[in-house]
Amino acid sequence: MATATRLTDAQVRDELAKLPGWTLAAGRLRREFVFRDFVEAFGFMARAALVAERMNHHPDWSNVYRKVVVELSTHDVGGLSQADFVLAAEMDQLAGGGRG
Amino acid sequence: MATATRLTDAQVRDELAKLPGWTLAAGRLRREFVFRDFVEAFGFMARAALVAERMNHHPDWSNVYRKVVVELSTHDVGGLSQADFVLAAEMDQLAGGGRG
Repeated sequence: MATATRLTDAQVRDELAKLPGWTLAAGRLRREFVFRDFVEAFGFMARAALVAERMNHHPDWSNVYRKVVVELSTHDVGGLSQADFVLAAEMDQLAGGGRG
Repeated sequence: MATATRLTDAQVRDELAKLPGWTLAAGRLRREFVFRDFVEAFGFMARAALVAERMNHHPDWSNVYRKVVVELSTHDVGGLSQADFVLAAEMDQLAGGGRG
């Protein structure tokens, strides 16, 4: 993410409008996914981990049984970049049945 | 973990003495693992997830890049059970190079 640039508030608003499950929390993009059980939750994390590594853009996330809370931001720009929204959208795809 | 029983404070102290990397935090067993990078950190989580699922005893945990924070407790007994210490010891094994 060497070329990441910080999105403006207006850009963040526009991007956020496309991702209904996500909210802003302390300047970070946040979503809670709830799955059927731990196997489904961790299966999601494993898939998302591969995408994150491929993008070289990694989530802050936590897991308690069937729940996964994801927070995204771009450290290098001190805010949100396009990569956060790309990863968020990928996670939505990967979550399939996971509802937030 | 149907037969889990809550360990006494003395039992917890004894068990804790065998696990140098772990501390008590708000009644839970806590350790922070630090790995070389995200691949190592998530590799640890994947291995630990399989063990947790096999034990039917799941961690509360979070991951930020190369760091994994684990908190263990046994909901059913409102405290710590033997399973928490078994899982903690297994995680230490799995972590290999991970230092906390």
